[in-house]
Amino acid sequence: MNPIDRLTEIFSHFPGIGPRQAKRFVYYLLSRDQSTLDILTENIDHLKQDIAQCNECKRFYPSTSSGQVPRKICPTCADESRDHSLLMIVPRDADFEAIEKSGSYKGYYFILGGSLPILEKEPAKRIRISDLQNLINKKKDAVKEIILAMNANAEGENTSDFLRSHIKDLYQGGPSIQVSELGRGLSTGSELECADPETLKNALLHRTR
Amino acid sequence: MNPIDRLTEIFSHFPGIGPRQAKRFVYYLLSRDQSTLDILTENIDHLKQDIAQCNECKRFYPSTSSGQVPRKICPTCADESRDHSLLMIVPRDADFEAIEKSGSYKGYYFILGGSLPILEKEPAKRIRISDLQNLINKKKDAVKEIILAMNANAEGENTSDFLRSHIKDLYQGGPSIQVSELGRGLSTGSELECADPETLKNALLHRTR
Amino acid sequence: MNPIDRLTEIFSHFPGIGPRQAKRFVYYLLSRDQSTLDILTENIDHLKQDIAQCNECKRFYPSTSSGQVPRKICPTCADESRDHSLLMIVPRDADFEAIEKSGSYKGYYFILGGSLPILEKEPAKRIRISDLQNLINKKKDAVKEIILAMNANAEGENTSDFLRSHIKDLYQGGPSIQVSELGRGLSTGSELECADPETLKNALLHRTR
Amino acid sequence: MNPIDRLTEIFSHFPGIGPRQAKRFVYYLLSRDQSTLDILTENIDHLKQDIAQCNECKRFYPSTSSGQVPRKICPTCADESRDHSLLMIVPRDADFEAIEKSGSYKGYYFILGGSLPILEKEPAKRIRISDLQNLINKKKDAVKEIILAMNANAEGENTSDFLRSHIKDLYQGGPSIQVSELGRGLSTGSELECADPETLKNALLHRTR
Repeated sequence: MNPIDRLTEIFSHFPGIGPRQAKRFVYYLLSRDQSTLDILTENIDHLKQDIAQCNECKRFYPSTSSGQVPRKICPTCADESRDHSLLMIVPRDADFEAIEKSGSYKGYYFILGGSLPILEKEPAKRIRISDLQNLINKKKDAVKEIILAMNANAEGENTSDFLRSHIKDLYQGGPSIQVSELGRGLSTGSELECADPETLKNALLHRTR
Repeated sequence: MNPIDRLTEIFSHFPGIGPRQAKRFVYYLLSRDQSTLDILTENIDHLKQDIAQCNECKRFYPSTSSGQVPRKICPTCADESRDHSLLMIVPRDADFEAIEKSGSYKGYYFILGGSLPILEKEPAKRIRISDLQNLINKKKDAVKEIILAMNANAEGENTSDFLRSHIKDLYQGGPSIQVSELGRGLSTGSELECADPETLKNALLHRTR
Repeated sequence: MNPIDRLTEIFSHFPGIGPRQAKRFVYYLLSRDQSTLDILTENIDHLKQDIAQCNECKRFYPSTSSGQVPRKICPTCADESRDHSLLMIVPRDADFEAIEKSGSYKGYYFILGGSLPILEKEPAKRIRISDLQNLINKKKDAVKEIILAMNANAEGENTSDFLRSHIKDLYQGGPSIQVSELGRGLSTGSELECADPETLKNALLHRTR
Repeated sequence: MNPIDRLTEIFSHFPGIGPRQAKRFVYYLLSRDQSTLDILTENIDHLKQDIAQCNECKRFYPSTSSGQVPRKICPTCADESRDHSLLMIVPRDADFEAIEKSGSYKGYYFILGGSLPILEKEPAKRIRISDLQNLINKKKDAVKEIILAMNANAEGENTSDFLRSHIKDLYQGGPSIQVSELGRGLSTGSELECADPETLKNALLHRTR
């Protein structure tokens, strides 16, 4: 395979990118100065050493260069002022960012690393089950509520069901725990006429006074 | 204008129909038998006499031919077994249908006839304000909560604000009333990553346990 | 079925209209004055008597009220100044209009009434084969070229193939005839990169100097 | 700026990529093994040395490692069996690939590097004018026809107009040259009803017999 096709092939594995756009990326790079390409590769080269994965929530975060930190903990997990009674499980780093940006949550997080398609045979290959188990065992005394913040679709519901029964097992014979899910309702932009019965039921249930 | 263009012009005022599709409607009708056209016009001719507008909720409903009913009241408004303490205001007939289909509401309705664009100068031309006023005055003693079930967009919020202050005026010095709005949250199919802060805030607030 | 559902059902057979939009049409009509509905039904009622179908090209056209015309012939077919050597077969009335509007054709037309899906077992139910046969037999001496102006897709090509062999049979042992098809090439808005090989081949073949 | 945001910023300059998808690229890379990242950066690093830009047609092509070639010429320009009388000017490398794949052209190429928006004040910054001038001067005796193969839109037509007058100046007092453009017509998938008058005119003009 020639270098254009080889790089096209690599880019076509990027999320949401097909072969035609992947090739456009290659021609775009060819039309840049070598210095621009060097900045790109340098940033990719340093990505993994500049970005650490938090030992607790498993999210990726810019690591400080100082290096005196004994264990790798992200600033959110290290922030002692947050609410220790709450643990929210989100599918991906981008979901963590969306929730943080909304400013409406002050507890701790765990990044699951994905979600479970229905009938998935090997859940442990898709999501960070044992990491979650470790974190829950560690935080068992403080945490009073685990919030399953999954996407509002079939895969999200399947993941919630899986986690719910998994968490129940972990707490067997231990302290009591409340497992909750994000509220359903009309999301911004929704029209009543097009809303499904489930959404309408929840919108009515959770009406604001 | 020739008959094809004249009918095209009429169809192009139908909701969501442009001139090209309107003309396709005309050619579609031309290619049907005269009997098919007769069935169509007959149904349109009888529409207004077969369909009554409810004197209370203002929705359109198939009127019974018996004709002994002194005032025109739809079956929903006439159903004494529903919850008299609840009145829900929806923008359009289709929204009434969506809510009824969800099976999660058992109170009474009022069809507003539309919603208010921001900075609308003549609200009374857009929505049925005086009809609403009459219904509220009539039901004042029974109704404990008025639910503003508007679309979750800027126009819907504007309409809710308008109705809220209007209702407040109507109840000045009278019985107390609770005015509520449909709950916001993740609607079915929503992804966390793409949800706006308002939706996330509400999804967190109304989380289900 | 109630009148709303009955009319919804009729509108949902209109080209490109699903049940939700069909119901919106009904509510739109309910919200109009009776006089607006009367104008609509009047126009539909008179459609077939105001619009004649041309005995030659089979297209629909506004018929003159005078009524002295012995046979129903549309103004285009009656126009003796057009080029008698050319006959163009188009699928539908709207295609006739598009070609006439382009101002680049001065021959006569035949409206086929549709096109043939691949493997269609009963072509005569889909397209006006016997009408075409009659017209060709009548014009055999004057017409030198028959232009098959079909859509540039699989169904159009299938129809062209069918017509080509059908026309060949009709001219068996008679005068010679040229059968042509519309030229392929880059249509306005096309990008080279996205053009298929067939289109590019033709664009090269028919390059303008 | 942190490394995630820095790399997000770089990816958001890739053609067709917004900030949200750019960030998804970064998280995608973070979730890969270091070895996968190394293969990517290696390929980008070697891109410019593995890929040469042809001195004649200016397209990018995989360069052979042998290195005995005195000047950098791509295999297509070096192929003496092609038709020396034809030179086709295309906007981009991807257009060259589309034409070659169609197998319907056997002359030589020039990659213009882009096209000219209407009212562009500095054409030389957008397209390779002086490179084109050099190539034309070099091939003046052999080339009999220059084909302007631009996209069939306003920008393409503007570029054709610009090139036409530029080429006319170059040939002032020299050998005669024919300048042609790709033929317009119905491209595969087009429907007659939706075709613009220009396309229909050309489809009629270039009808196939």
